[in-house]
Amino acid sequence: MWDSLWINVHLATMRDGYGEIVDGAIAVKDGKIAWLGSVSALPADYQTKVIHDGQGCWLTPGLIDCHTHLVYAGNRSNEFEARLNGVAYEEIARQGGGIVSTVRATRAASEQELYEQSLPRLRSSLEQGITTIEIKSGYGLDTVSEAKMLRVARRMQAEHAVRVRTTFLGAHALPPEFAGRADDYIDEVCQHMLPAIAAEGLADAVDVFCEKIGFTPAQTERVFAAAKAHGLPVKLHAEQLSDQGGAALTARYQGLSADHLEYLTDSGIEAMREAGTVAVLLPGAFYFLRETKLPPIEALRKAGVAMAVASDCNPGTSPMTSPLLSMNMACTLFRLTPLEALQGTTIHAAKALGLADEVGSLEVGKRADFALWCITRPADLAYQIGINPHFMTVFAGQVRK
Amino acid sequence: MWDSLWINVHLATMRDGYGEIVDGAIAVKDGKIAWLGSVSALPADYQTKVIHDGQGCWLTPGLIDCHTHLVYAGNRSNEFEARLNGVAYEEIARQGGGIVSTVRATRAASEQELYEQSLPRLRSSLEQGITTIEIKSGYGLDTVSEAKMLRVARRMQAEHAVRVRTTFLGAHALPPEFAGRADDYIDEVCQHMLPAIAAEGLADAVDVFCEKIGFTPAQTERVFAAAKAHGLPVKLHAEQLSDQGGAALTARYQGLSADHLEYLTDSGIEAMREAGTVAVLLPGAFYFLRETKLPPIEALRKAGVAMAVASDCNPGTSPMTSPLLSMNMACTLFRLTPLEALQGTTIHAAKALGLADEVGSLEVGKRADFALWCITRPADLAYQIGINPHFMTVFAGQVRK
Ligand SMILES: [Zn+2]
Ligand SMILES: [Zn+2]
Repeated sequence: MWDSLWINVHLATMRDGYGEIVDGAIAVKDGKIAWLGSVSALPADYQTKVIHDGQGCWLTPGLIDCHTHLVYAGNRSNEFEARLNGVAYEEIARQGGGIVSTVRATRAASEQELYEQSLPRLRSSLEQGITTIEIKSGYGLDTVSEAKMLRVARRMQAEHAVRVRTTFLGAHALPPEFAGRADDYIDEVCQHMLPAIAAEGLADAVDVFCEKIGFTPAQTERVFAAAKAHGLPVKLHAEQLSDQGGAALTARYQGLSADHLEYLTDSGIEAMREAGTVAVLLPGAFYFLRETKLPPIEALRKAGVAMAVASDCNPGTSPMTSPLLSMNMACTLFRLTPLEALQGTTIHAAKALGLADEVGSLEVGKRADFALWCITRPADLAYQIGINPHFMTVFAGQVRK
Repeated sequence: MWDSLWINVHLATMRDGYGEIVDGAIAVKDGKIAWLGSVSALPADYQTKVIHDGQGCWLTPGLIDCHTHLVYAGNRSNEFEARLNGVAYEEIARQGGGIVSTVRATRAASEQELYEQSLPRLRSSLEQGITTIEIKSGYGLDTVSEAKMLRVARRMQAEHAVRVRTTFLGAHALPPEFAGRADDYIDEVCQHMLPAIAAEGLADAVDVFCEKIGFTPAQTERVFAAAKAHGLPVKLHAEQLSDQGGAALTARYQGLSADHLEYLTDSGIEAMREAGTVAVLLPGAFYFLRETKLPPIEALRKAGVAMAVASDCNPGTSPMTSPLLSMNMACTLFRLTPLEALQGTTIHAAKALGLADEVGSLEVGKRADFALWCITRPADLAYQIGINPHFMTVFAGQVRK
């Protein structure tokens, strides 16, 4: 006896490409997929408590945004406006702008305020069929504030029908009180912050911003080693603005993903391929920063490195929440195919979070997380811009309100 | 006695810049703005039938999308996908793709089908605070089909709380049956199509696609003369891919707007300035086509030519409905300021439609068309990407359902 059965839907299972099943059906039991196939192949003796009419929609795996900084206080529209009014970046920094302003606002916010300010961004994601979302810390930069961010992320899962994966990104930027003492701050991250975060069970993974304007590969590796000691998987902001060898370093630590990758080299690609590290593409940041150096898509494709696509939702370089727009930008700006873009927000995004056995495709035994779309074909999801064809979301087998 | 009063709002009146009134109030009578100002300046003896609580939102003029091709049948996601899978443009054209495929689908659709297929795009616009929208014909390319498109556009106004301005764009492309006979088609447009459309009162303005791959300036001028003979104002798809002198031609005919303008020259700008012709910027098409030649924003700004910002919603070059995303792209790609972007979708867009006396700003006597937004400052509207902070829309003084 199934709990529910969806009929009058077309399935994009995301197994072997789109894995399209026109006129399909999909059954749920105990929050998992119990059966799926062509409606004409339904077992003659099936029994179900409920039948849902999908009204001819396309049904895909629930979307996954595998790289966000969605929890923060304040925003930076004032800086955005100042820059466009001709104020120089240095002047904005002098006035306390940039990431420091987000750190200040995030530290100052109570946990409740931080939750409330971040909620519209979560809601916006949910309205576009997101069922799993990764959320990083990294605007607290001290133990108390980092833990506060991650508790807010955990609370989002507790209070909404969504799966949240949290990532500790203490090594996101150097906090003002450690100016000129990056190695001391990394000591703090490894010896105090990470152990405290891990002890409270607040992080599912650990991330570092490895860049000339961030932390060095040596500092990154110290954080990775500490993560490993706590049994936490790693990922990395790598090769966004320059080649630091971050992707290869991540691969050496069996990292889940290396993210951004505009300056990724062939040897980095090879290391990622061997380690099964996912390439997370963040076209929203590329767009917002008006970058011109493209990530090596064709080389990643040829090497068979799985490519995920994420929003990078953050106030400074990608004030964007939309997985659909991420997909369109991945196609328009990075020349991914619509299929690759959808894989990037489903099956490959699941892999980037270490959840490929649970979510990301429609397969018997996986979680019954679906999104239903009023579209004529799967490619519409990446083709349309700024229109939301979302019809409904099913999370763990239940229609999400 | 007012019909209604909005309190607990901040106003962006769009008079002289944002025209911000923090802690404002705005009153409506007979569908028009009867009073506005600081809440503390409310007349002591005011009387109103209803008081609405704006919950601390920002209240702007209802947004205006002054350039769309929103009514069409089918879509072109299959071509989008084929191109990204490496199929050459020529091959797609050989298979009947391109604008011809939209013409075919639009001609084949019944008026009811065309309405239903276009409705999700209108709904998406309405969800983002649009209260006035321009809709062009141009995928029918014969009298019957062009009239069908425009009737669908008129019906959208009849059945929704939105103001629709229709534009006859019979000279959008050469229909297959006139291949090699562009001048004959222009005869058809001027002598049969336009008179029939005008007789039925279906068009508020007339537009032409003036381009190497469209119609020549001489052909454009024939259409403009015919429009003038029917008392209809003109506008033009001008200087998108090359300089054809279209903007200056439009100015000579006291055109409402010249649109696209990537290749606009100084003399074109000067002609527009003198004639009061609005420059309509369409960053969605620039983005989707990955153009690199920017419109001469700084020169337009210096000349004081009003700049509007529109979606260009169409299946081939801008499958986008979102006024908010248009604003972000105008800032990110064209370097407009957030203020200019908001002027571009309010007061300047109203001017581009010949409606500057009626809508586009909050002023006593203008239509009570408002949008309320959950934002911290007006610049948030252009800063955020793919998140919709829309709280509610008021059309002609009534809360839109
Ligand atoms: Zn990031
Ligand atoms: Zn157009």
